[in-house]
Amino acid sequence: MTDATTQPVANQPIAKAFNEETLKSYIAGQPHLHKIFNNDLSRVQITEIGDGNLNFVFFVTDQNAALAMKQALPYSRMSGGARLLTCERLAFETNALKEFKRLAPQYVPSIHHFDTKQSLLVMEFLTPHIIMRKGMIEGIKYPKFADHISTYLANCLFGTSDFSLEPSKKREMVAYFSRNVELCEITERLIFTEPFINSDNNRWTRPALDEQVFALQNNAALKMRVAELKYRFLTRSEALLHADLHSGSIMVTETESKVIDPEFAVFGPMGFDIGILIGNLMINYFTQPAYANKNNNRASYQDYILNLIEEIWDGFTKKFTLLWQSQRHGGAYKNSDFSDSSTDMQQALNDALTQYLHNILQDSTGYAATEMIRRSIGRAHVLDIDMIENDALRSECEKEILSFAVSILENKQDFKSIRCFLEKISKK
Amino acid sequence: MTDATTQPVANQPIAKAFNEETLKSYIAGQPHLHKIFNNDLSRVQITEIGDGNLNFVFFVTDQNAALAMKQALPYSRMSGGARLLTCERLAFETNALKEFKRLAPQYVPSIHHFDTKQSLLVMEFLTPHIIMRKGMIEGIKYPKFADHISTYLANCLFGTSDFSLEPSKKREMVAYFSRNVELCEITERLIFTEPFINSDNNRWTRPALDEQVFALQNNAALKMRVAELKYRFLTRSEALLHADLHSGSIMVTETESKVIDPEFAVFGPMGFDIGILIGNLMINYFTQPAYANKNNNRASYQDYILNLIEEIWDGFTKKFTLLWQSQRHGGAYKNSDFSDSSTDMQQALNDALTQYLHNILQDSTGYAATEMIRRSIGRAHVLDIDMIENDALRSECEKEILSFAVSILENKQDFKSIRCFLEKISKK
Repeated sequence: MTDATTQPVANQPIAKAFNEETLKSYIAGQPHLHKIFNNDLSRVQITEIGDGNLNFVFFVTDQNAALAMKQALPYSRMSGGARLLTCERLAFETNALKEFKRLAPQYVPSIHHFDTKQSLLVMEFLTPHIIMRKGMIEGIKYPKFADHISTYLANCLFGTSDFSLEPSKKREMVAYFSRNVELCEITERLIFTEPFINSDNNRWTRPALDEQVFALQNNAALKMRVAELKYRFLTRSEALLHADLHSGSIMVTETESKVIDPEFAVFGPMGFDIGILIGNLMINYFTQPAYANKNNNRASYQDYILNLIEEIWDGFTKKFTLLWQSQRHGGAYKNSDFSDSSTDMQQALNDALTQYLHNILQDSTGYAATEMIRRSIGRAHVLDIDMIENDALRSECEKEILSFAVSILENKQDFKSIRCFLEKISKK
Repeated sequence: MTDATTQPVANQPIAKAFNEETLKSYIAGQPHLHKIFNNDLSRVQITEIGDGNLNFVFFVTDQNAALAMKQALPYSRMSGGARLLTCERLAFETNALKEFKRLAPQYVPSIHHFDTKQSLLVMEFLTPHIIMRKGMIEGIKYPKFADHISTYLANCLFGTSDFSLEPSKKREMVAYFSRNVELCEITERLIFTEPFINSDNNRWTRPALDEQVFALQNNAALKMRVAELKYRFLTRSEALLHADLHSGSIMVTETESKVIDPEFAVFGPMGFDIGILIGNLMINYFTQPAYANKNNNRASYQDYILNLIEEIWDGFTKKFTLLWQSQRHGGAYKNSDFSDSSTDMQQALNDALTQYLHNILQDSTGYAATEMIRRSIGRAHVLDIDMIENDALRSECEKEILSFAVSILENKQDFKSIRCFLEKISKK
């Protein structure tokens, strides 16, 4: 936000798509990038590796160095040019990355360069990291992940909240990210609207899921809960969200975890990021039986996932609590406004935190459920489900995902703990 | 927001203060203003009439026409130049006025002209309207006011909410008004922070109020409730607020009511506007005995105020309900997403509205209480209290105001109705 080069401009430049040749000459023209390759591009290889829906990503490497170069063109990649989007989305992504890098440096890739005119973001190339979703489908365990992501969540959500920021600074950031309307519109429509109405964009395994889908689209209590969650997403400016924190936005090794692609970033309720993550872990949980074979029934991997979710939540609350206790320098509940160290006051502050975390848990479980539904019956599905080739097996998993999500949204009482949420998994 | 001339600019112009002569030649140079005076300024009289803290207001009139011309200089008027403020505040005010005028045309003055460079806003001169606060101090009743202001509140709050606006439009407005940080900082500090800590800016009738002030500044439960209300003000982007809707921001006759001066405008919780208004009416209620004389003990005026508050709340909920039932075209609870007209769905929607109004009531009562406290012991007091010359009489009123406000903030259970709130007035 402080870097003039990342300020969005009113008249969007129309960047030209790079190819191998033009990208090389671009690098040659940028001394700090050129230097990464020892000012010699003769052995540099360039491959387009993007598998996302919106942008192009180039892998640029020689024997000694590697960069990821992401270009946003003025349309959605998936649409082949039919769906127009402003290039400004890459500026929002860059500014969000910078903010998260500041707050959780170990868990966010390094940025080398951003060029508004070319709509180009140059980052470290993460290797040998893989997309976490793919690792989970393969049944790979990530022993450090819960610790990493709970730190990321606590630092980024606390650090961009009114607990940490002065109101003027936070309002300035809200003003900036509120302009990320194009991608927010996608979030709002694909997660909260289309799956719950009759929309041509929805797709699900038919006819196996028909009954469940029509039932949930006519379930008044459930629709009201989803409308409330959408309302909270639209109105509660609690923290700067990644806003697309699924397991495909996380790159991992056994020892490292990096959160990428925050192009949907906007201020919203803290539980949204946590919920989207948990929802995707739960989807993977329910698909594990489909990946079982005679050597591995994946039961232990399912246990691993449930533990992981508990550890993430517990880690988040512990780390958030530490930040709350010592770093409340912002506009809300400012430490120095509560200098009275009486037992009463300290107890009242602790109670306020407990209530706040309780509210985040309710939001998180709600957003987890909406994510599970939209990934099963909405427009954008996930590999965990789509890679199951056997139709019967796949629809079985989808049914379980939907049943669980519906039971979460229909739940009348607050979840007292993350365990109460996980206990909603129906026993067989 | 759509008018380029009202867009704020990065480099603030430093407007020169007008005097009679320069203002006349300015009008002469603006054909549409000049025409209002039949292109003849020879009989025009100009008087500076501003009594606010921040700006200058000129009354410009001849026998046939009258205008109010408000100029914001790059400092606070009250400070005599010591406290710098950007002139941009007048652009926020102008854009808020335009928005409220669109939504509640009868209750907002007409705008004739806005000049960014001169930091000048030209509006209709309201006559014979007087500031409502002054009327109430005199014991004047306004039989139409509850109807007027409840329409204003319902139309403006609903009309700038996600119930009415598409998310992209609303986010654009949030982006714009989030930049009104200077005046928001005043709101945040004067209402929610200073009165509850040891601050040199506070002032109260000493020593009469000392005990109560120190008690509330050390009341853990009360401070926590105020911190929660501040947090909601900082994070809940529900609607575009006037954000300073006290009885000094309303001009009235027996048949007309006009809301002026929305320079503090920002998105926030709907209950904030309603609460500030109710808080100021309650302050006036508690000061009425000090204005009693042998001809009028003001008891009937006190009854009038309590009725007025009930009528405002009831009118607001009725009008908001009508809008909710028929005008939900925005991003939240959109009518067309709930086309199912089953009893279940209609009941669920009604329940959601009831819950929403219940939440607004809790916010409104909380903000009413913080307003009553800050106007009694904070930096900016009100005439209702300050005009009471007898120290003992004044401190008696202030004590009652504080006691009532504290009882509201300490109340553990939700208020089920506005009547439950009013019943907290201690019987004598």
